Amino acid sequence: MPRSASSLPQAYDALRIVAASDLKAPAVGEALIEVAKIALRFLGGCQRTDLKCDIPGKDYFCFQQAPARSRPINSQLFDAELALQNIEQVFHKHPAQIRQDILQATLYTAAIAYCAVTDLTKTGDQKTPGTYFEIFVGHFVARVYGVNPKNRIQVLNLDLQSELPTDFIFDLGPDKARIHLPIKTSTRERVIQVWAHQRVLDGVYGMGRFRGVLVCLAETNAKPDFGVTEVCLPNQWAIYQMFIAQMHRVYYLDVPLKYAELGKQFPFIPVIRLSNSC
Amino acid sequence: MPRSASSLPQAYDALRIVAASDLKAPAVGEALIEVAKIALRFLGGCQRTDLKCDIPGKDYFCFQQAPARSRPINSQLFDAELALQNIEQVFHKHPAQIRQDILQATLYTAAIAYCAVTDLTKTGDQKTPGTYFEIFVGHFVARVYGVNPKNRIQVLNLDLQSELPTDFIFDLGPDKARIHLPIKTSTRERVIQVWAHQRVLDGVYGMGRFRGVLVCLAETNAKPDFGVTEVCLPNQWAIYQMFIAQMHRVYYLDVPLKYAELGKQFPFIPVIRLSNSC
Repeated sequence: MPRSASSLPQAYDALRIVAASDLKAPAVGEALIEVAKIALRFLGGCQRTDLKCDIPGKDYFCFQQAPARSRPINSQLFDAELALQNIEQVFHKHPAQIRQDILQATLYTAAIAYCAVTDLTKTGDQKTPGTYFEIFVGHFVARVYGVNPKNRIQVLNLDLQSELPTDFIFDLGPDKARIHLPIKTSTRERVIQVWAHQRVLDGVYGMGRFRGVLVCLAETNAKPDFGVTEVCLPNQWAIYQMFIAQMHRVYYLDVPLKYAELGKQFPFIPVIRLSNSC
Repeated sequence: MPRSASSLPQAYDALRIVAASDLKAPAVGEALIEVAKIALRFLGGCQRTDLKCDIPGKDYFCFQQAPARSRPINSQLFDAELALQNIEQVFHKHPAQIRQDILQATLYTAAIAYCAVTDLTKTGDQKTPGTYFEIFVGHFVARVYGVNPKNRIQVLNLDLQSELPTDFIFDLGPDKARIHLPIKTSTRERVIQVWAHQRVLDGVYGMGRFRGVLVCLAETNAKPDFGVTEVCLPNQWAIYQMFIAQMHRVYYLDVPLKYAELGKQFPFIPVIRLSNSC
């Protein structure tokens, strides 16, 4: 029998509260570590089932707690033991001081653990995994930059003045490009919003003032027959990159195969592992 | 007791099948009339409850069949008797031959009737009202133009060639602007997609080749305490119109108050009743 996940909602609520007041604060790191530990211990008691995977070079499994199944989890990246050993240093040290393979596996494992437990224990909850992942990545980036993001910007245009709600915007100081950082567990058809917001920022503040960096978890899709596939629309991304705006980088914790190819051909969208950013 | 809505899913399926093969065909009009009649007769047996409305000059009610409630319905526009009397002429005559107030009320009543019955009888079904409304408006427009829309376009750019899935695109012949016609029951935060797709069309084919026309049902939001409000983001629409692309017109069956104002100030987005288009 899996251990209870009953303390997870409490730990998640505590995380949200500290994150709302100061995202870059060490307390947020501690709260993220706590959530990851509870989630990983719970998953340690759940049944693992291998999935049929048609993606070359990748293997996936899911956790099960009948009748629920978790989202697909990358077998090469998920390592609960390694993550439990290294989660502290990931949120305490500068990421450049951590071995890249350890950083990669720990980030992936800790990020997907909360999502997987939610899949198993709460029906139809798509909101808290998204918020958790946003805090997870937002804190990771804010701590490295030493600055908290904003999520709305002033739009001034002659006699018009208004505010636009945005994804995270990091101001790194004068004469540096600001970072426009949308964070999504997966993109699907909503991703055109990312390029459209970048276009608005380019239009209002001038080209190059905001560097667009999209961070995602994965693009896997579970099929009812225990199969798994990656849902990718690389041609559409290329069209958005050519005709809406230029995204500077796309980071994934689990890089989809077809998006990795986008860095090698026009219009050259670099899609790489988040751990390679450090 | 309300009459059964059991024949509605069948009528909806029949509508989808005829619409998929030839959207402008008279058979689609007949199927739409059939769905509207079944839905309106069902609603005739349901309880009506007035809603508390904070929108000046507007009144709303909902249908109830415990424990379910329908979406808010505009009391000034909904007229089941009028709609049952006039639904045939709306889908048989050219709309310019129909009195505008009759056209307006009949379109609104017939469009929202299917959505309201679905709210009452199917939990969590947001998909079929969206599809129904798309066929409803798509057929109305296709019949007037005498041409069926496409929903993907070729994107050619030097050595790249790919296809972009789009909302409806109507080709009205050489030297005429094509019509880019997204259709949504309501917009909420997803609406930036509409401007972003218009931007791609402008970029690929040149400014003015595609005229962007958005058609929506309403922007009402029901509150748990039997209140109703309109969810509008006019400042954001103005920003999209200035910095992403230009939409030519926005039509509503139930025009939201704050969006109606957008036609009177820069950047001048005309937001008007669909019946005024004819």
